[in-house]
This record gives sequence, C-alpha cells and structure tokens, in this order.
Amino acid sequence: MILINGESKEHIEISDRGFQYGDGLFETIEIRDGQAVFLERHLQRLKSGCQRLYIPFPDSELLSSEAGELCRRWVSDTHSVRAVLKVIVTRGSGGRGYRQPDVIQPTRVLSLHPYPDYPEIYREQGIVARFCVTRLGLNPALAGIKHLNRLEQVMARAEWNDPAIQEGLMLDVNDHVIEGTMTNLFYIKNNSLYTSVLTQSGVAGIMRGIIMTISADHGLSVIEHAFTKDELLSADDAFVCNSIIGIWPIKQIETTYFSVSPITKNIKIQLDRFINDECIAAGGRAIAESTNSRRFRRGTQQ
Amino acid sequence: MILINGESKEHIEISDRGFQYGDGLFETIEIRDGQAVFLERHLQRLKSGCQRLYIPFPDSELLSSEAGELCRRWVSDTHSVRAVLKVIVTRGSGGRGYRQPDVIQPTRVLSLHPYPDYPEIYREQGIVARFCVTRLGLNPALAGIKHLNRLEQVMARAEWNDPAIQEGLMLDVNDHVIEGTMTNLFYIKNNSLYTSVLTQSGVAGIMRGIIMTISADHGLSVIEHAFTKDELLSADDAFVCNSIIGIWPIKQIETTYFSVSPITKNIKIQLDRFINDECIAAGGRAIAESTNSRRFRRGTQQ
Repeated sequence: MILINGESKEHIEISDRGFQYGDGLFETIEIRDGQAVFLERHLQRLKSGCQRLYIPFPDSELLSSEAGELCRRWVSDTHSVRAVLKVIVTRGSGGRGYRQPDVIQPTRVLSLHPYPDYPEIYREQGIVARFCVTRLGLNPALAGIKHLNRLEQVMARAEWNDPAIQEGLMLDVNDHVIEGTMTNLFYIKNNSLYTSVLTQSGVAGIMRGIIMTISADHGLSVIEHAFTKDELLSADDAFVCNSIIGIWPIKQIETTYFSVSPITKNIKIQLDRFINDECIAAGGRAIAESTNSRRFRRGTQQ
Repeated sequence: MILINGESKEHIEISDRGFQYGDGLFETIEIRDGQAVFLERHLQRLKSGCQRLYIPFPDSELLSSEAGELCRRWVSDTHSVRAVLKVIVTRGSGGRGYRQPDVIQPTRVLSLHPYPDYPEIYREQGIVARFCVTRLGLNPALAGIKHLNRLEQVMARAEWNDPAIQEGLMLDVNDHVIEGTMTNLFYIKNNSLYTSVLTQSGVAGIMRGIIMTISADHGLSVIEHAFTKDELLSADDAFVCNSIIGIWPIKQIETTYFSVSPITKNIKIQLDRFINDECIAAGGRAIAESTNSRRFRRGTQQ
C-alpha cells in the first residue's frame, strides 16, 4: 500500500536522486489502533533533516493527511489496526550529477507494511546482542539525521545469521559504541542513564529522545557521552529502543549477562504510559480532524 | 534510454534496496565512437565492489551485451557516437529492514545519457577548484568502492553555485585532502606524482588507476600518501580526473595559481594514446563479437 506524491503507485523513476545517490531521508512510524504514533514528532524530525540536506520539506498537513488515508485503507483492507508506516522524502529528479537541480521538487513516498512479528519475550525478558565488525564512519554533516545512505547498517546486519542474536551494536572508527543497527542504545550505571553522543555518527531516534525526556522528568540523570565497549559491559544493565519495538532490554552482549534493573523496568512503564496517553490524544485529534474534514467537505460542496 | 534487468523501462520498485538504503554500486562509463571505453575494467571494479558488499555479480557478458545493445540504439536514435553509460547494480528487493534477503536477486540498471558539454578549455587550460566544507567520513568497509551512498558528495556539490568554479576538493575528517566531488586528485612535486590513499574514504577511480599505471610505466615515481591542504597548495601543479573528463589540470585552488607542468602535459599525451589504443582494440573486439554473434545466430537458426 503505497502513495508516491499522492498517487497509488509502486514504482519510482530511476532518475530519482533517492535511487541514484541515496539523496533523501526517511521515517519509520508505528501504526497502533489505526493511528500513526508520534506522527508530529516524526514529521518534525523529517523537516529538520530536510533543512540539514537543503531539501524543501513537503507540507506537513499533506503528509499527515496521506498517512491518515493510507491507515484508513489499511484498516479497511487488512482488518488490522497495527502496521508500520515508512515515509521517504528525496530530492526528486534532476540536476547534473551530484549537483542538485536549481528547482528542487521533492519526491514523497508513504508505504504501509505489516507490523513485524517480534516475539513478546524480547520486550519482557530481553534480547541477545553482539558487537559488529562494521564501523560507523564519522561525519558531522550527516550525523543524527535519518538519511537514505544506510550501507553501513546493511553491512553490519549482514555479519550474522544466528536467529538467537537479535541486534548488533555498532562502534564508530574511534572505538566508541554508538547504537544498534536499527536501534539506539542506553545503559544504566549507578542510577544514571547513559547514551552515546550523536554529533559524529548515528541516528537521533524519536524513541531515544522520548526516553531521555521522560527519564529526566522522573528524576534520573541522563548523560550523553562517548563510551567504549568496556564501559558498556560494566554497566548495571542496558537496553535498545526504536519507534517500532519500544524498549528491548539487553540480557546478553556476547559473554556478558545482564538482568533488567528496576530503573529500566520503570522507564518501560513510564514509556508505555506516555505512548498510551499520546495514542489517546492522537485518537482524539483524529476524531476532531475527521469531523472538521467532514465539515470542510460539506462547506466546499455548498 | 534505460534497461532494467534487460527490459526497456524507466521505473523501479520502491522496495528496491537501492532506493531504500542506497544498497548498491554504480559505474559511469564514457561512450566514444559508439563503444564503452574501458568497459572490462569498469565491470571488473563493479564485480569487486559487489564482492565487498556481498551482492552476487550479474553475468559480465550479459552486462556487456546489454551495454552494446543500448549503444547501438543510441547511435541509431541520436546519430551521436558519444554518450555516458551508467550501470547500477543493487541488492534488489526483499529482506527485513537492513537485513538482506536469504536469496539475493540483484537489480541491474543500464542507462545512456548525453555526453556533458564541458568546455574544451577545461581540458586545455585547466579549471578552478575550491575546498569544500563538507568532509568525507572515514569508513574502511566502504572506502574505495563506488557505492550508492553519495550524500557527502551531494552536500559538498551544493556548497557553491559560482559557474567559474568547476570542482570542489574534499577533505576527510582528519584534514587529509582525498579527492574532488566527482574526480580523483593528483599533484606533481619534485618530479613525482602524488595521490591520496583511499583505504579510509574516497573512490578508487578507473581513470586514477590507469594514470598511476601509465605514469609508472613512463618512469615517474607514483606515491599514494595522506596529504594536507598545505602540501597540495605547495605542489608544482595538480590535476583531477575521471572516466568522463579524462584529465583536467587545476589552474587555481582558491587564491593559489598553478601552471600546467611538462609532466602533467606528458601524462595527458600518454593517457590520450592509451585511450585511443583501447578504443581501437575495443572497436576490433566489437567487430569480432558482432561477427561471432551473427555466426552464432545463423548457427542457432539452422
């Protein structure tokens, strides 16, 4: 189920700079109860990524309305209220080689996919992680944003096939642990919450930002810093997160075992509450918007 | 004029990993006298890039034959014997997120484009270059290969609009000068030829390799090393190269001026001879292949 610039299509021009150079950005968003969770935050990050890459940001309301249309179709066609929405924005076609065109007409692609069938046990009892050999390059110009240049993650994820390992942790070329292939990483030590600095590499995840905020709001010291494998392995416990999985505690990294600390348990509880509140609020907004939209349509028909 | 997996099409599935993650490689090849120049070398580099990324390499003969078919169509449709051939190979569709599919069915895209109308004066009298602010990240896993993750080059090329500047030179995050946005870089100092080491970043261009070989064959010391802006600016002269432009001497980098040294002039002459010899040889091979192919067709028709 795909909308490309508002039209139901499944193909894109090969001249699109997203295909030619990975010249674009994306968001991966949970659909719960038929609603896009944290949609405004995702669109805000997409907007700020577009600003970093000088790509004109498509209208937020247009993106929200297309997301809503796809969700309604999804619920109606699949009778499922859960899914994953991927939003891609590229610099569109044109330009000469790497040089961007004088007038940029961005391409927007919204697609819905089945919610992945991760076992519930990952959330409850934790996952096994390994360290990847593939390193994250350093690049301040691209660090933090969720752009389409993802070969490092593809190469890292190709390092293992063992289904007993759920995530690979990536270091940068300076031996700092940065994140998982598809997640951000936190650890707990002496009642403080630590996560890596993302000014040189990595993706500043929406879920990471929310966890930092709610943890600080609940009195926890939240510290962004550069840390090594050894620092991570000496933590009280650790977890990974993203917008689709929420939080997965890490029960094992290679030969080091962790048990879920009361702090992590509490962060999970606070996060679940926060997401539920957001869903209820978004549901309310959706009902209001749908009512307004009906009023508006009636209005334009007169 | 495009062939996607052998079919005349202009669109690709949005699920293609080339679009989703920049998960692929490309080659940009000069078409001269209706023939792909250095085609075998380009396909060899593409093959070695595919090996680095664990993408099954499409059959070389298939790629050559599709390139030949496109060239024949181009000459027949446009009455021009000069063009640019772009060959893209991606990991195809499928897999789960960054994880590659168990069975990889690569996508191959061959497209022909008009030869760019660069003024002849660039070749003869040289170009003006600047240093870009955007840095190249360090990543040994991806260094040297011509992959589809090209946001750094796009960002660097977006830094200037002044048509008086033809190329931007990029440094890595360690302040070493690596290459141009679309070219490799050489400089001459004390009768030796220097170029950057490409083990941490950069693209090992086909033209770069040829220039290194023919220079060494003509008794020049060819030195790959890490160098700074100041070392480059104190050179006797410098030039950039790629498969489409050949060699462009640099006459000015910001406020430093160069004049084309006899060594660079000689390298240009040797390179032109080498390319001409290659074209004559490739033309001969093409005639032979075409004859074989006719014989073969006659054979199968019997």
